[in-house]
Amino acid sequence: MVEERFYKHLGPLPLIELLDTLDVDIPEGQFGDIQIQNAAPIGQAANADITYLDGKNVAKKSAGCKAAACFVRAGNAHLVGQNNVLALISNQPQADFAKVLGHMYAPLKYGKNGNPSFTNVTPNQGVVIGAGAEIGEGTSIGPNSVIGPGVRIGANCQIGANVVIEFSRLGDGCKIHHGAVLGGTGFGVTPSADGAVDVPHVGSVRLGDHVSIGCNTTIDRAMFGETKIGTGSKLDNLIQIAHNVQIGNNCMFAAFVGIAGSARIGNGVIMGGGVGIPDHISIGDGVTLVAQAGPIRDVPAGETWGGAPATPIREQLRQLSALRKLVKKKPPAK
Amino acid sequence: MVEERFYKHLGPLPLIELLDTLDVDIPEGQFGDIQIQNAAPIGQAANADITYLDGKNVAKKSAGCKAAACFVRAGNAHLVGQNNVLALISNQPQADFAKVLGHMYAPLKYGKNGNPSFTNVTPNQGVVIGAGAEIGEGTSIGPNSVIGPGVRIGANCQIGANVVIEFSRLGDGCKIHHGAVLGGTGFGVTPSADGAVDVPHVGSVRLGDHVSIGCNTTIDRAMFGETKIGTGSKLDNLIQIAHNVQIGNNCMFAAFVGIAGSARIGNGVIMGGGVGIPDHISIGDGVTLVAQAGPIRDVPAGETWGGAPATPIREQLRQLSALRKLVKKKPPAK
Amino acid sequence: MVEERFYKHLGPLPLIELLDTLDVDIPEGQFGDIQIQNAAPIGQAANADITYLDGKNVAKKSAGCKAAACFVRAGNAHLVGQNNVLALISNQPQADFAKVLGHMYAPLKYGKNGNPSFTNVTPNQGVVIGAGAEIGEGTSIGPNSVIGPGVRIGANCQIGANVVIEFSRLGDGCKIHHGAVLGGTGFGVTPSADGAVDVPHVGSVRLGDHVSIGCNTTIDRAMFGETKIGTGSKLDNLIQIAHNVQIGNNCMFAAFVGIAGSARIGNGVIMGGGVGIPDHISIGDGVTLVAQAGPIRDVPAGETWGGAPATPIREQLRQLSALRKLVKKKPPAK
Repeated sequence: MVEERFYKHLGPLPLIELLDTLDVDIPEGQFGDIQIQNAAPIGQAANADITYLDGKNVAKKSAGCKAAACFVRAGNAHLVGQNNVLALISNQPQADFAKVLGHMYAPLKYGKNGNPSFTNVTPNQGVVIGAGAEIGEGTSIGPNSVIGPGVRIGANCQIGANVVIEFSRLGDGCKIHHGAVLGGTGFGVTPSADGAVDVPHVGSVRLGDHVSIGCNTTIDRAMFGETKIGTGSKLDNLIQIAHNVQIGNNCMFAAFVGIAGSARIGNGVIMGGGVGIPDHISIGDGVTLVAQAGPIRDVPAGETWGGAPATPIREQLRQLSALRKLVKKKPPAK
Repeated sequence: MVEERFYKHLGPLPLIELLDTLDVDIPEGQFGDIQIQNAAPIGQAANADITYLDGKNVAKKSAGCKAAACFVRAGNAHLVGQNNVLALISNQPQADFAKVLGHMYAPLKYGKNGNPSFTNVTPNQGVVIGAGAEIGEGTSIGPNSVIGPGVRIGANCQIGANVVIEFSRLGDGCKIHHGAVLGGTGFGVTPSADGAVDVPHVGSVRLGDHVSIGCNTTIDRAMFGETKIGTGSKLDNLIQIAHNVQIGNNCMFAAFVGIAGSARIGNGVIMGGGVGIPDHISIGDGVTLVAQAGPIRDVPAGETWGGAPATPIREQLRQLSALRKLVKKKPPAK
Repeated sequence: MVEERFYKHLGPLPLIELLDTLDVDIPEGQFGDIQIQNAAPIGQAANADITYLDGKNVAKKSAGCKAAACFVRAGNAHLVGQNNVLALISNQPQADFAKVLGHMYAPLKYGKNGNPSFTNVTPNQGVVIGAGAEIGEGTSIGPNSVIGPGVRIGANCQIGANVVIEFSRLGDGCKIHHGAVLGGTGFGVTPSADGAVDVPHVGSVRLGDHVSIGCNTTIDRAMFGETKIGTGSKLDNLIQIAHNVQIGNNCMFAAFVGIAGSARIGNGVIMGGGVGIPDHISIGDGVTLVAQAGPIRDVPAGETWGGAPATPIREQLRQLSALRKLVKKKPPAK
């Protein structure tokens, strides 16, 4: 599932070796010869993989788990045991999984074989292109931009100056303006006994056709899978799109929009400046969010919301009006 | 009107050729020999130019129009016809104009003749300077910065590292801090039958003397004409200034200020962190906007406003006070 | 006090020469032979130093002042005179001090001796490393990043592409993601007769171990002393940390957090997206600030606050609830 286009797969690795530095209760019995193929989320783990179980809905999540081994709290061990998965008892299942994940994959390096000859693109000065990158006909790349190993850029794209694109696939006709960063690691942190641990991100970014990304905007790659922005969507400068966000087609976002992890944005959504979307929220097709809106629950298709916490705009206007009347009724004491 | 210092003018071009890919009702009669010199907004179009008419106040806008041809909705065709302008009937006048504009001008390229020898500046490593750029005495440029073709930088400026400056003129004594981007294309998008279309930006950026621009701040160039920041104005990190914004002298803006297209900001205006200004708003001389303020109409000179939507600060404080009293009066049910 | 690792000390300089371009009332008597060693804040100035006195609490600030000379308003001259400090009468003490400070120190240049050979790091293409920089074992540096003179980076750090790090010390295991800027000059401006004057920043940035800094995030260096981020703290993309901010260990900040000058943030503080902290505020250990919160006074340890201006979250929820009820009671006129 982790793409070898972007990441070097270091497995299979002996389970005993992966557990070497971790503080887990290793179950009794012989398992010194178990080889772990991949690290994957519990719903996607195959027979030879390692995974973890924690958080909400553990019973549902663990149903049908096929992994070879699973980091799990003692109280949940029976759930994975039902599936004949080896339970690795831990007080910090996600942190332990994060560490194993970091041992299992490594991003490809730019290497000495960077800047391979491209017959169809004349990069400007200072451009660095990683091995295995593919760049379509008619695409231009501004000075001092960096294109990571394995990145695929479509035809007739315009890449500005000082841009960084890693772990990404871009369609045709995209414009990535100066200083934008695509494919940076997502902000995923999990607590551990040693403080917060960065969860490795081994996913990628996918842009449709004719997507525009503004200056100094940042689009994080997915933890697993893809962060997606659909065809025709236009993002202004200084926007933040977190890991695993899914954005539909023909959206328009103004500056300082921030969309947190795994939020889902429909087609044709318009967001004013400074709108913030929390993680895992869904915004329906054709929604308009006015500047500085902060929805804290799903917004149904076609609606216009404002305020923080955001409400339908009519409700927002009523609240403001009521507040103004309240003030008028009671003039402040002199 | 579009400056040949920054853009290559590709005209004159035959009108018939410009319309070739567009879905417009071509009027009857012979016009195969009409040559179009420039693409310009309706108020500025000269006799041999192409323009468009749409939006509000179409009667006022079209008065005295001198263009050779004008994209216009069927219902407005009589307005341009009065001036003997050839009406090009379209359901998407601005989108069609945008496409023609893109055919008419091309940004100059860095070209092989980049990094011309400068007798008065010793650029650091990795600096890329486009042909025709002029850099004043005593100006320094940090490593890996990119100065576009035709850019003019005054004397005694300090340009940081990884800066991008294109389509811009800077006065003397300016400081452009690391990662800032000046002259990126503005965020102008217009709907069309094929989804949103980027409107080409063929204007520039002008900074007065002693202007400071913070790290990773972005200043977009104008669609036509100039985005301006007056002498002595100081902008913090991570600020966004959109296309065609006009900022006076001696302003001070804190981080995350965002100013939308064509807003006009007076002299000596102070904005706290996170202030957002909508497009086409005017902020008077000497105004103070407290952190996170979001005015939605013009703010008169000398006033202090806060809140979102912003009001005079006294009104804001009254609203907050009234709200606090309201809560005290009605304790929540247990 | 200003570190020669980062700045060239140009003193001692004759006082008469430093005052040459300033509009100060030079006191009577001979002082042509006074040599000024350093420029320092009044609490830190040693016998041969120059300083300034202005703002609040001037009596307290001036107690025990040891400087050789002090810019001071006429009305406060007696305060410095008590300590046998030469009073330099000025209508703009901080602006005059700022100008002197700029004459006293100059940042080290990258110089021709940039990119010294490192036996322990293989920088990627386009990396520029200033003289005197130290980079620990196992640290990697992405393409086109810029490491300033004297910067010290610990072991096993990951520096992304197009990063700028100047005037900074980083511990071990830090991750600085693409486009981030560490050590940019702070946003310190003081009014003067000639408009706002940038105050030179001659301090630095210090990061503990295992600190993560997101893409295009900016961390300003201190005016004097250090801007600090403690071990294990994790900052998302597009965050702004101003000069002299002190951040504890194991904090987690989401995108668009902005922290103004000299604010103090405890250990284990969590901030949602878009939180803004004014200058000189203290946020206690273990505080949580929800997205878009804007505290305007100190927040005690362990509390959760929201809203702008921020209040304890329970109060915030009560206000929202009261407002909703108020609207329900009075349906809007049709």
